[in-house]
Amino acid sequence: MAAADFFAKHKDTLETALATIASRGYWSPYSERPSPRIYGETAAEDGEAAFKARLGKPFGMAGHPGVEYHATGEQSPYGIALGVTYPKLSVDQALAAVQAGMKAWRDAGVEARTGVCLEALARINANSFEMAHAVQHTTGQGFMMAFQAGGPHAQDRGLEAVTYAYREMASVPAVARWEKPQGKNPPLVMDKHFKTVPRGVAVMIGVSTFPTWNGYPGLFASLATGNPVIVKPHPGAVLPLAVSVEIVRGVLAEAGFDPNLVTLLTDSRAAPVAQDLCLRPEVKVIDFTGSNQFGEWLELNCRQAQVYTEKAGVNAVVIDDFADVKGMARNLSFTLSLYSGQMCTTPQNFFVPRDGIRVGDNHLSFDEVAGLIAGAVDKFLSDEERAAAVLGAIQAPATAERIEAAASLGEVALASRAIAPADYPDARIRTPLILKIDAAQRDTYESELFGPISFIVACDGIDGALAAWRETVASKGAITAGLYSDNAETLHKAEEIAQDVGVALSVNLTGGVFVNQTAAFSDFHATGANPAANSALVDAAFVANRFRVVEIRYPVEAEAGAAAAE
Amino acid sequence: MAAADFFAKHKDTLETALATIASRGYWSPYSERPSPRIYGETAAEDGEAAFKARLGKPFGMAGHPGVEYHATGEQSPYGIALGVTYPKLSVDQALAAVQAGMKAWRDAGVEARTGVCLEALARINANSFEMAHAVQHTTGQGFMMAFQAGGPHAQDRGLEAVTYAYREMASVPAVARWEKPQGKNPPLVMDKHFKTVPRGVAVMIGVSTFPTWNGYPGLFASLATGNPVIVKPHPGAVLPLAVSVEIVRGVLAEAGFDPNLVTLLTDSRAAPVAQDLCLRPEVKVIDFTGSNQFGEWLELNCRQAQVYTEKAGVNAVVIDDFADVKGMARNLSFTLSLYSGQMCTTPQNFFVPRDGIRVGDNHLSFDEVAGLIAGAVDKFLSDEERAAAVLGAIQAPATAERIEAAASLGEVALASRAIAPADYPDARIRTPLILKIDAAQRDTYESELFGPISFIVACDGIDGALAAWRETVASKGAITAGLYSDNAETLHKAEEIAQDVGVALSVNLTGGVFVNQTAAFSDFHATGANPAANSALVDAAFVANRFRVVEIRYPVEAEAGAAAAE
Repeated sequence: MAAADFFAKHKDTLETALATIASRGYWSPYSERPSPRIYGETAAEDGEAAFKARLGKPFGMAGHPGVEYHATGEQSPYGIALGVTYPKLSVDQALAAVQAGMKAWRDAGVEARTGVCLEALARINANSFEMAHAVQHTTGQGFMMAFQAGGPHAQDRGLEAVTYAYREMASVPAVARWEKPQGKNPPLVMDKHFKTVPRGVAVMIGVSTFPTWNGYPGLFASLATGNPVIVKPHPGAVLPLAVSVEIVRGVLAEAGFDPNLVTLLTDSRAAPVAQDLCLRPEVKVIDFTGSNQFGEWLELNCRQAQVYTEKAGVNAVVIDDFADVKGMARNLSFTLSLYSGQMCTTPQNFFVPRDGIRVGDNHLSFDEVAGLIAGAVDKFLSDEERAAAVLGAIQAPATAERIEAAASLGEVALASRAIAPADYPDARIRTPLILKIDAAQRDTYESELFGPISFIVACDGIDGALAAWRETVASKGAITAGLYSDNAETLHKAEEIAQDVGVALSVNLTGGVFVNQTAAFSDFHATGANPAANSALVDAAFVANRFRVVEIRYPVEAEAGAAAAE
Repeated sequence: MAAADFFAKHKDTLETALATIASRGYWSPYSERPSPRIYGETAAEDGEAAFKARLGKPFGMAGHPGVEYHATGEQSPYGIALGVTYPKLSVDQALAAVQAGMKAWRDAGVEARTGVCLEALARINANSFEMAHAVQHTTGQGFMMAFQAGGPHAQDRGLEAVTYAYREMASVPAVARWEKPQGKNPPLVMDKHFKTVPRGVAVMIGVSTFPTWNGYPGLFASLATGNPVIVKPHPGAVLPLAVSVEIVRGVLAEAGFDPNLVTLLTDSRAAPVAQDLCLRPEVKVIDFTGSNQFGEWLELNCRQAQVYTEKAGVNAVVIDDFADVKGMARNLSFTLSLYSGQMCTTPQNFFVPRDGIRVGDNHLSFDEVAGLIAGAVDKFLSDEERAAAVLGAIQAPATAERIEAAASLGEVALASRAIAPADYPDARIRTPLILKIDAAQRDTYESELFGPISFIVACDGIDGALAAWRETVASKGAITAGLYSDNAETLHKAEEIAQDVGVALSVNLTGGVFVNQTAAFSDFHATGANPAANSALVDAAFVANRFRVVEIRYPVEAEAGAAAAE
């Protein structure tokens, strides 16, 4: 199918997406329910079979550069053998390959490029079951989460990026007639052609925990705006991005473009390539999700490129007087359990007045608040099967070690324990560790301790709690923040702080919405306004500078004459 | 008048501006004709009197920080005494002053801030005659150009920036209701508030040649998006920006905001402050027009800020076979004369086949082409009064010295001469120097020689001319490019090169449109895609990252219950 046909095929989806980023209401074209009625009667088995067929083999892709294959060190946190090897290529090979089709991709224009991206997302959606297995066995996410967050929710974010890219590119007309009156003389008339041109080679550096969810926005924003993309996955989570790259390449080839416009460049922890790659002058756009250290290195050193980073922060929840503490504890028990706190949106610090809080007509001491949260988590995870499904597995061995080391950092409110489910006896599964600590121990709670480790911090009243929140976000950044309060004054103060330090705030969540979840098309993910991230998923700023506009103008002599003759 | 009233007052202007940036047709709300019927019967005299009343005095502004006044070294290129002194303040004082009203300005919201900016532009427009004198006697522009480029055309660019800022901010709704179906269960319902927040302190660093035209976009884009702005003019062209700052401050105060949200920080060549200022962590946005050296320093060193630069490049015109060479020469004679080539858009290099070109059925040798252009400039400037009016004066003594030094760089096709008009006998006025040179002397023509100095470069055929153009733009950058050709193949090749190296191209201009002029709302100024500038005036990318969005979301329990009861 030609690119123009892909654009026509998905026009309605694009129109709805455009309307939704303007209204920011609820919408998703990709169902989060892994239902046979939606994905097809055999989709679940087909997906599992496709995943299993990848294992123990080289991941070959038609026309992809590289003749040798290598292992990246990818391992399943659930303990199954993966054994997939990937094309081994040099930075030079990747840069040469990805640029070969660049001019044709540029000249194809806005609608053709958008059409290819929309079709690729639709095919990735149809492949959500295979993706769920690939995400589960690289990130450690439980299957249902791997399906949703690695599949439809990631696809939503990718579509959101394509939608913004289309909106910004389409806001400049391809051609304009300019006619300036000259009093009694004929007007000056010009025809102006506006061409969107790419910046150059784009690099998307994947993260180990959410390779597709965090990866698709940059990948598709760069591709839609005309930039060829080198996908450089985290060596521990290659497969989900390799499968994604394969699908995008298939659509590119079918539409008559060079599939190497999206090229996979893999490395290993022992021989990383990202620094060499990102310093190359051909690289003009970089998307990165991962550590503060490397994110800041990219921001400081890759001056030739537009650099979009999501790093780490220290998320917090402030707890003030609040009547529905049971609802709060229930909500937080899921928040803390989901994917064992390995989301960049999971709160680490709970700032609570040391003198406790008012709960309706009653009073709850600091220890009672801590006990309520710890107890809710403990109860929620008492069913081992549900616990394993919600917790998923710990992606990296270092995270499991960190949980053990952290136990001495405060008074234990809830100890972490290991779980070994029947289906994956070797899985690396841990329940959350919850510690009590004093606000004076700022050095301890101000550092990000990635994984299921949280602090309930005793503060000097609600103002002390708000101050601790403000200070940690200002200095270390945060992706999310939560507040529980029945006091209008506290709500007002918290809204001011959220704006001052630039962090998204969720207030009084007791139901089925969680502080660590955002919905594409409606919620922005990160703000780009504090040290945790320099950009947001997805807004206009995320796409508008990935392309430039070249204007070519011609005088229109005939029309000028005609106007003069009137 | 309240800010909301200002917004209402200028709503129609804003709506038309929004429509025009989408259509990119012709429009300007600010008349470029210095006519009493438009600006008022006494506007011309009042403006001149206002200008004269500034001279020889401290430039005081109500409530502005600084108790001492100092001279910045500002001198009229026309030789009249200015003697204006400006508030002398430290970087610390400026930063403290500008931040005091920041929260109130943020909390005022999108429409209030936009309203203040629109009213300020309207008042600046009403003051265009005073501005014309201020621009003439700092930049050296002739009076008519100073009126147009320093007045209405600069105001157009400012309005364009406000329009883009408004469009991008308004594209995120202030409030959204999000309702996610939950099958047979009640939906999840959230109210989401989206707050636009500023990045921090913005700095606008003015240029000596076009202080308002190049300054307003950054100033108004930053202010509209909520950032307080420190205006740091070039020490040689302070007055136009000081007058602008005074007007904006008046509107801010009238609308109930702190006038120090726009603060003037002046320096001198002997004691520059821009580096100290721009390295301060409070500074989050920087707009700069000026030298490559300082622009690159800002880009490399001010990592805490969004940096928007317009530096210098080497603009070129490629001349191929072309029938209307007389129209070409006439058009270029004005282009080269206007403001003595001191526009960042004036072409420096004319790449011409050394074997000459075809002109209809005839042939013109390289020397004949050079002679045609040189002759047209000479003839155009033969009327000394017209010459003085179009050339204006040379802004900086160094530019006049450069003209003399450059005469030995090639074979002189047209010598530069001085003009001393009757009204300004001490004015520093020079006619253009045109040199013939060979394409092999790339080192000579590839350097920017700011001022009325141009090279007619003998190239190996049209392909050699196109290659020389491509190479100089790729390595040194360019703001503009021109082409004269009757050959479809050359046109096609040139369009490809323009897109490859990212430069705007004007084709076959023989009438009243000139390669060095762009029209706001329709033409982009610079592309941000080559070394001459990292951004364009004005597009979405110029504004979208000057603000961030903070989301605050609340569950809507009542509605959820109501929906469940249905």
